Amino acid sequence: MTATNRQILLASRPEGEPSVDNFRLVETPIPALADGQVLVRNHYLSLDPYMRGRMNDTKSYAAPQPLDEVMIGGTVGEVVESRSDRFEVGDHVVGMGGWQEFQVADGTPGQLRKVDTTHIPLQAYLGAVGMPGITAWYGLTQIIDPKPGETVVVSAASGAVGSVVGQLAKERGARVVGLAGGPEKCRFVVSELGFDVCIDYREHPDARSLSAALKTACPNGIDGYFENVGGIILDAVMLRSNAFSRIAMCGMIAGYNGEPTPMQIPALILINRMTIRGFIVSEHMEFWPEALTELGSLYAAGRLRYRESIAQGLDSAPEAFLGLLKGRNFGKQLVKLT
Amino acid sequence: MTATNRQILLASRPEGEPSVDNFRLVETPIPALADGQVLVRNHYLSLDPYMRGRMNDTKSYAAPQPLDEVMIGGTVGEVVESRSDRFEVGDHVVGMGGWQEFQVADGTPGQLRKVDTTHIPLQAYLGAVGMPGITAWYGLTQIIDPKPGETVVVSAASGAVGSVVGQLAKERGARVVGLAGGPEKCRFVVSELGFDVCIDYREHPDARSLSAALKTACPNGIDGYFENVGGIILDAVMLRSNAFSRIAMCGMIAGYNGEPTPMQIPALILINRMTIRGFIVSEHMEFWPEALTELGSLYAAGRLRYRESIAQGLDSAPEAFLGLLKGRNFGKQLVKLT
Repeated sequence: MTATNRQILLASRPEGEPSVDNFRLVETPIPALADGQVLVRNHYLSLDPYMRGRMNDTKSYAAPQPLDEVMIGGTVGEVVESRSDRFEVGDHVVGMGGWQEFQVADGTPGQLRKVDTTHIPLQAYLGAVGMPGITAWYGLTQIIDPKPGETVVVSAASGAVGSVVGQLAKERGARVVGLAGGPEKCRFVVSELGFDVCIDYREHPDARSLSAALKTACPNGIDGYFENVGGIILDAVMLRSNAFSRIAMCGMIAGYNGEPTPMQIPALILINRMTIRGFIVSEHMEFWPEALTELGSLYAAGRLRYRESIAQGLDSAPEAFLGLLKGRNFGKQLVKLT
Repeated sequence: MTATNRQILLASRPEGEPSVDNFRLVETPIPALADGQVLVRNHYLSLDPYMRGRMNDTKSYAAPQPLDEVMIGGTVGEVVESRSDRFEVGDHVVGMGGWQEFQVADGTPGQLRKVDTTHIPLQAYLGAVGMPGITAWYGLTQIIDPKPGETVVVSAASGAVGSVVGQLAKERGARVVGLAGGPEKCRFVVSELGFDVCIDYREHPDARSLSAALKTACPNGIDGYFENVGGIILDAVMLRSNAFSRIAMCGMIAGYNGEPTPMQIPALILINRMTIRGFIVSEHMEFWPEALTELGSLYAAGRLRYRESIAQGLDSAPEAFLGLLKGRNFGKQLVKLT
């Protein structure tokens, strides 16, 4: 048993764009377990856009990440020591273990969840069959709720959330149009994920140009939009939105560094009688079992595909995270910790 | 029987701000009735902000007002000649009679509706117990749906729609804060309509200043907002919106002349998990009976108050309409045609 843990802390808050200097790697001794606790060797750390928001010290839906503490993050791993009667050594678990190699967890329900890796690979519980997949499921089914033949647009379409949104929409008989950065991602979105079309947003410098591309890709207009990005993409989509269209607002990565990202024509909400709703999946736990059942079944049937970018070792986490914010990842961004 | 009708047509489309030159008064003979038709002497014409949108030749939820035709508009009046077995001479009716003194109407349901003026004055069917009142009812009950103790903000609070929104919200136990232009309107909103507070938006040149005033007026934040105006008022409200707050988007008069009115921080929709929904009351006819029942009962009980600005004579309609767009009216803007 290693007696030392390696952890990455938030060292300082970014002014605008974050850098590796905002993080600090430390080595700390692993404490002895108290009654009821378990020691987990984290195998994979999930990197997600929401973490950027937590780095700021501003009002948001969640408390800011405290300085000099272990960065928040979802993890999957294996129990290596247990003083809980709910977990045994060797159990595979998913939880919010943070940016560190080991975590000492209270073995309470909600903090750690045992998962079955017979049919689903461990790290999928951080992606398509985990929080990102459930995020996709909630926004698509509870806000966009597409009817067969309707058109659904998804930004960040090759990402952990967007890739699932599009596949769930196809399962429901919708026409699905993705937006992604670069030809390689667009090819993947169409040929591997089965979207009808994917637009490379990098070819479109403004909302007008992107809106023209959307007009071609969506000949019947847009009925639902799953928003991961914001900025000109939102404006362009709104210009093509149909009456009674729905926008599920899940992320607005375009403004995470404080850039202003106004919505240019909010009157379109009225003109098109649109519904726009922001949501945070962790506030809708009552849907998790239903979502996980569908996602797990689709995966087992080979109808839920995804891609992963895996960075090697805890040290690589800050660089991988900054890359995620710039869209340098391809699919779900993970850090392999073992 | 007068054989001549006087009508106001749309003569030209406005470039930016409309003027009286966009309208033309004409005299035309009243045609003989065909079987099933009725001739109505219009007593009151309703002037409403939506008419500004119809003057443009742009995509919106309704077809543009055709040039050289009678301006669209709601009217109440009296049947003066009938070849319909559904209407008798002397019946009071409400319908979309347009900007004219007489209308020849097919006596079909949906085009003309007979109303009872025993307990409710005829012109109230153009206001609190008509389309504006139902608009208020729909947005408040079906979108904002306030719980007792929640805070609801209403823009254009002394107007035909806003005044009803606030009173319905008070009936439901909400704290109600109005926004209106000028001290006289604000006094009326509080002392006559019973709102808790009314803010004079003219005292606040920007969203930051208005947001500070809203902070004072809404110590527990804002749970629901009924939007009649747009622009900086929307931005200011969003800065004070609570988690899970709702915005019913009914009108955006701030941008009717083509001025850009961007929403500055759409990320607040996500941060506060807001729902924003645009609606047009004519698309929700299934709610009209329920709405009219509540509005009529409240009026009869003396618990639905409103104010009217009445312009005299058809000739005064264009000037009164332009005044409405600038907020020069006080309460429901009508034109008395008799």
